Amino acid sequence: MKTQMKHEKILLSHGSGGKLSFFLPVLENPYLESLDDGAIFSVKGEAWVMTTDSYVVDPIFFPGGDIGKLAVSGTINDLAVMGAVPRYLSLGMIIEEGFSFSDLEKILTSIQDTCQQAGVVVVTGDTKVVPRGFMDKLFINTSGIGRIPDNFRMSRKIQAGDKILINGTIGDHGTTIMGQREGLKMKSSLTSDCAPLNDLIRLLHPFGQAIRMMRDPTRGGVATTLNEIAEGTDYGLIMWEENLPTKAEVSGLCEILGLDPLYIANEGKVLIIAESSAAEKILSVLKSHPLGEDAQIIGEVVEEYPGKVVLETQFGSRRIIDMLTGEQLPRIC
Amino acid sequence: MKTQMKHEKILLSHGSGGKLSFFLPVLENPYLESLDDGAIFSVKGEAWVMTTDSYVVDPIFFPGGDIGKLAVSGTINDLAVMGAVPRYLSLGMIIEEGFSFSDLEKILTSIQDTCQQAGVVVVTGDTKVVPRGFMDKLFINTSGIGRIPDNFRMSRKIQAGDKILINGTIGDHGTTIMGQREGLKMKSSLTSDCAPLNDLIRLLHPFGQAIRMMRDPTRGGVATTLNEIAEGTDYGLIMWEENLPTKAEVSGLCEILGLDPLYIANEGKVLIIAESSAAEKILSVLKSHPLGEDAQIIGEVVEEYPGKVVLETQFGSRRIIDMLTGEQLPRIC
Repeated sequence: MKTQMKHEKILLSHGSGGKLSFFLPVLENPYLESLDDGAIFSVKGEAWVMTTDSYVVDPIFFPGGDIGKLAVSGTINDLAVMGAVPRYLSLGMIIEEGFSFSDLEKILTSIQDTCQQAGVVVVTGDTKVVPRGFMDKLFINTSGIGRIPDNFRMSRKIQAGDKILINGTIGDHGTTIMGQREGLKMKSSLTSDCAPLNDLIRLLHPFGQAIRMMRDPTRGGVATTLNEIAEGTDYGLIMWEENLPTKAEVSGLCEILGLDPLYIANEGKVLIIAESSAAEKILSVLKSHPLGEDAQIIGEVVEEYPGKVVLETQFGSRRIIDMLTGEQLPRIC
Repeated sequence: MKTQMKHEKILLSHGSGGKLSFFLPVLENPYLESLDDGAIFSVKGEAWVMTTDSYVVDPIFFPGGDIGKLAVSGTINDLAVMGAVPRYLSLGMIIEEGFSFSDLEKILTSIQDTCQQAGVVVVTGDTKVVPRGFMDKLFINTSGIGRIPDNFRMSRKIQAGDKILINGTIGDHGTTIMGQREGLKMKSSLTSDCAPLNDLIRLLHPFGQAIRMMRDPTRGGVATTLNEIAEGTDYGLIMWEENLPTKAEVSGLCEILGLDPLYIANEGKVLIIAESSAAEKILSVLKSHPLGEDAQIIGEVVEEYPGKVVLETQFGSRRIIDMLTGEQLPRIC
């Protein structure tokens, strides 16, 4: 907590700096120190993963999804990027008094649909109702567990020459939410990318150790996630701007709102760092899946710029892409 | 959802009617239908349990604990009453912008202390910060998993003659919280019973199938939990009023506030239904533990009053103790 004590109060930006920033100094233990999207534990020689996420998105219904679909997808994706096949979810709902039953039913139906699509099951749940005015509408926590197949062990170490892949366009979720909040409900086909990725990621299991690691670039976007990967390693990560798949509508809306799609949350994207020789084959497997049609090889691991992320522009110039500093968009997920 | 649609809006009372009342109609599956405090799943022949709970208690600091100790204890207890040895917890925090760091540090320290005391570990976590005014201070979700020892399988079926035991006084937690909220900060030693019960409950494992079932009487108190146990069975549950351990301060404050300790939340209590012949031995084991000093045999399973809970008063009269109807105390846990 020492490094935090300079702020006496929690700021909005504290909600965006990785999953565990507050917990580590007090709850010190080897599971948390791995700083992963989930914790690996062993049961009779099987590797299992546990993860948790709370969702406070506003608005709770948005083009492409709602808080229920988001909560199920997010936890499934945290398990899937750890290499696990998601199995069981828990569902904790905190609901404001006066919330409408028909909206609750829509959200539960969306949760059930997403679970069925992804082949997971909500095995346990809890609801709390808070008096009107003491919270805003509905917050959801989903925790989940899943098993890593015996033959799929990522090395989790990157090497120079490794390629960086993504399964599609960046910034769709956060831009959609911001557009809704700003009242920019223009005639737009802009939708959240919110989706469970376990079916897509399962296609990558046969690549085994050629997959170094995977991460879902949610809060803080691709830039933040790549910085977290590079940090503390001897390698830099170069992104090739011309290969970064970005929808024109996302770029346009980000320009209006003064945002950079690189820092905007995604909810149906996976970043994959893979051995160079397997990258093209992985790309074609990604493209074979509906959630990977716009997949690209977006960069590579280099020996220059250790610990840094660098964007190589379409004109060949390079600039450091830092961690996001200061306030981030609140209630994006 | 059909039975709920008569209310168009969520009421405070919806937060108190058991863990799953909203989910069942939509998320229908065999895990949820068991209506237990957690879900049992199997890994290579081992029985594991997963559970979740959100905590919105107000005030967040109270005599005997705080929201952190409560969140860890509550989830540990849900696992322990399912017969599991709690192992791994997740921790999801939703924090209002402006919340003080020193309070957060106190709560995290309390979480860590409770975990160490109980021998569990927070393996994964998440924080979200919500703009000021869109929620009240701090909400916590803890989910947990644990393993049921191979030699401890409760029958989970009650039989006439079985005895009902509790490890101590009733209503302490809820009464403490209400007292704080009503500003009745009298010179009182009234404290929440909030505590992890896994160490106590582990002492009962050697009784094996003589333990029919266990439940923690949290929201809705002993009366609600016993009603849930009796419901749908061919048996009634009789409680002997003179054996119900109740602190004079709890009775007194409940009288002032117009409450009944039987319906008040406990956070460090376990109800045990056990084979009659083992009841006295179980009682003495409970009493040997600091969290069971005030344990009592409080009633028995009978063939009369099928599906009902009945209180036998000190004068020998009997009255039905119903499920709580209408609004329950909000934000007790």
